Amino acid sequence: MSIVKVVFFSGSGNTKALAEAVHKGAAKSAESELMEVTGEMIENGRFKNEGFLEKLDKADAIIFGSPTYMGMVSGQMKCFFDGTSQRWFQGAWNSKFAAGFTTSLGLSGDKQSTLSYMATFAFQHGMIWIGCDTPNELFQGKSMEEATNRLSSNTGVMSQVNFGDEYKPTPGDLKTGELLGERVAKYANNK
Amino acid sequence: MSIVKVVFFSGSGNTKALAEAVHKGAAKSAESELMEVTGEMIENGRFKNEGFLEKLDKADAIIFGSPTYMGMVSGQMKCFFDGTSQRWFQGAWNSKFAAGFTTSLGLSGDKQSTLSYMATFAFQHGMIWIGCDTPNELFQGKSMEEATNRLSSNTGVMSQVNFGDEYKPTPGDLKTGELLGERVAKYANNK
Amino acid sequence: MSIVKVVFFSGSGNTKALAEAVHKGAAKSAESELMEVTGEMIENGRFKNEGFLEKLDKADAIIFGSPTYMGMVSGQMKCFFDGTSQRWFQGAWNSKFAAGFTTSLGLSGDKQSTLSYMATFAFQHGMIWIGCDTPNELFQGKSMEEATNRLSSNTGVMSQVNFGDEYKPTPGDLKTGELLGERVAKYANNK
Amino acid sequence: MSIVKVVFFSGSGNTKALAEAVHKGAAKSAESELMEVTGEMIENGRFKNEGFLEKLDKADAIIFGSPTYMGMVSGQMKCFFDGTSQRWFQGAWNSKFAAGFTTSLGLSGDKQSTLSYMATFAFQHGMIWIGCDTPNELFQGKSMEEATNRLSSNTGVMSQVNFGDEYKPTPGDLKTGELLGERVAKYANNK
Repeated sequence: MSIVKVVFFSGSGNTKALAEAVHKGAAKSAESELMEVTGEMIENGRFKNEGFLEKLDKADAIIFGSPTYMGMVSGQMKCFFDGTSQRWFQGAWNSKFAAGFTTSLGLSGDKQSTLSYMATFAFQHGMIWIGCDTPNELFQGKSMEEATNRLSSNTGVMSQVNFGDEYKPTPGDLKTGELLGERVAKYANNK
Repeated sequence: MSIVKVVFFSGSGNTKALAEAVHKGAAKSAESELMEVTGEMIENGRFKNEGFLEKLDKADAIIFGSPTYMGMVSGQMKCFFDGTSQRWFQGAWNSKFAAGFTTSLGLSGDKQSTLSYMATFAFQHGMIWIGCDTPNELFQGKSMEEATNRLSSNTGVMSQVNFGDEYKPTPGDLKTGELLGERVAKYANNK
Repeated sequence: MSIVKVVFFSGSGNTKALAEAVHKGAAKSAESELMEVTGEMIENGRFKNEGFLEKLDKADAIIFGSPTYMGMVSGQMKCFFDGTSQRWFQGAWNSKFAAGFTTSLGLSGDKQSTLSYMATFAFQHGMIWIGCDTPNELFQGKSMEEATNRLSSNTGVMSQVNFGDEYKPTPGDLKTGELLGERVAKYANNK
Repeated sequence: MSIVKVVFFSGSGNTKALAEAVHKGAAKSAESELMEVTGEMIENGRFKNEGFLEKLDKADAIIFGSPTYMGMVSGQMKCFFDGTSQRWFQGAWNSKFAAGFTTSLGLSGDKQSTLSYMATFAFQHGMIWIGCDTPNELFQGKSMEEATNRLSSNTGVMSQVNFGDEYKPTPGDLKTGELLGERVAKYANNK
């Protein structure tokens, strides 16, 4: 049984809800763990939590999640990414599988910027990136609430949440996240 | 009165409809012209229409439009872009203003990839990029049909068109395009 | 033995030389084939070569190569990419492995834009992207001629060629390409 | 006389040296100020320095600088960017001019990713992006030390610094930065 880690930062709870769906999917066939990056792990703009990183060293796959803030992963998530530089230097995460997901208020916004950068980050580590291959079910007549991949994203999973929706991804967005978790676990198990 | 050119490729007519809206906006204060790139201008994968390029040499601003095909400007538009390489070498388009717009079937898809690349192309020419600063009116309660910038795009204007909608951007998307044309003309007039 | 296809467009011969190195690496453990996209395959800006695409349908991995023209894959390569839209619609290339390489005259230029887009394209098809994990040997004291990955690229392989060098990638760039071919073949064989 | 602010984060001093060159260029015709983002301004991953932001409110142009860490602006710079979200919401920085610069150890690396994102950030604020239009003097036979824009970057200025060079951009890289400052000041003065 392979090890999958779902590493995320969440500001309002939206990304956390999506992370839980991804974790649920991964846990179907792998040993999955949710790992939350918090502001408290950052001192003077630097990520300080060696134990957190050591848990990731053992993963076969890491799935990254962040809200899109100002067109990119959140500052907290970026501090975490910078905190992996020693692993990068050593090539310690080479050949792990990787994937990503993001949330924001706008339907498109610059969420692709976030996902594309997460992949760039993973390639620096020598990781192999697994995108989202779930069809956009709006094209099959499903509703905005129920359709999987309604935003037509393939680099990773995008979710959009309205103001006042109690900040919760749609059932379709959550399902898309779950399917990403399942897909990544399948590759991790075949590693 | 400054000269603005709206250069676009359109496959199904969606991008053309949006181009007309952009042109309408630019024409309010500048001498604007719609210029359509067609497959016939491309021979063996190379853009062959020197007269087309010479008209652009005289522009104060150029606004680029293309559908997003497979996550990027269409092949036809890319052939046109490659056809400007002599101008690039000479720095002939330096300091012109530039902007862009795109259409696709998905709500997000990879339209940001298209717009971000158009800006990269413009920077190679030394052009100055003007984004879309129109607010997302979904956040103010307007409908998906009427809201400007409902996809929350700022690098340029994004329009999404459903299958079966007679392939036509929404009134809100067209309004967003028109406002981009107005904004670019304002800068071109102040050049 | 898995099937790897190295699909490329080359204008001056640089990208072809790099493609041959990638092919050499892939052929060590897989059935590799070089497939060149040419201007003659493009009619009125559209790729017209069904037989070419059918060969790719059988691949376990596809490695894409293109010069960076005006900050992106060449127009010819983009026309080829657009020509795969029927496969995209059917999900026919889902789960194939993919990778990429590019060449240009500048040391950095916008080659990352090209590679990042190639990955975006691959994700639309549901493909899994394998980056370049070869260390930058400039950091170990090797020369600009001999060092692998001297440009520090990880999304794919970048090669830079000077004017007047008989348009030929350096030995280090070719070695980096060869190692990418080897890496992709390894994943294709384990599919 | 217009107001230009050069806002940067620097880890080792490279980006600071480049920032000083940009500031020198801007100061030739505008009232320019260097403003350094530091780790101390970040509490629990959030930028906390309202006075810093208020100074930027008065600028006609803002030039952003950051090292490229793990393929993107540094975490500290991203926290600063996130800290501008209230201004974004109000459209307070609309129509300011913007530009950017970055440094890293690799010749290419993912510095384009950093610059392209800085532009995306600026477009969210409704800012107008001014790229680097300085020719690559390597093509004219100048040395790696002296050539301006030797990395062929146009979205902004890229500098590369070797280990052991006392961490200092080349004279050519500094000159390229200075010219960016001059260019931005020219637009700010014409606002």
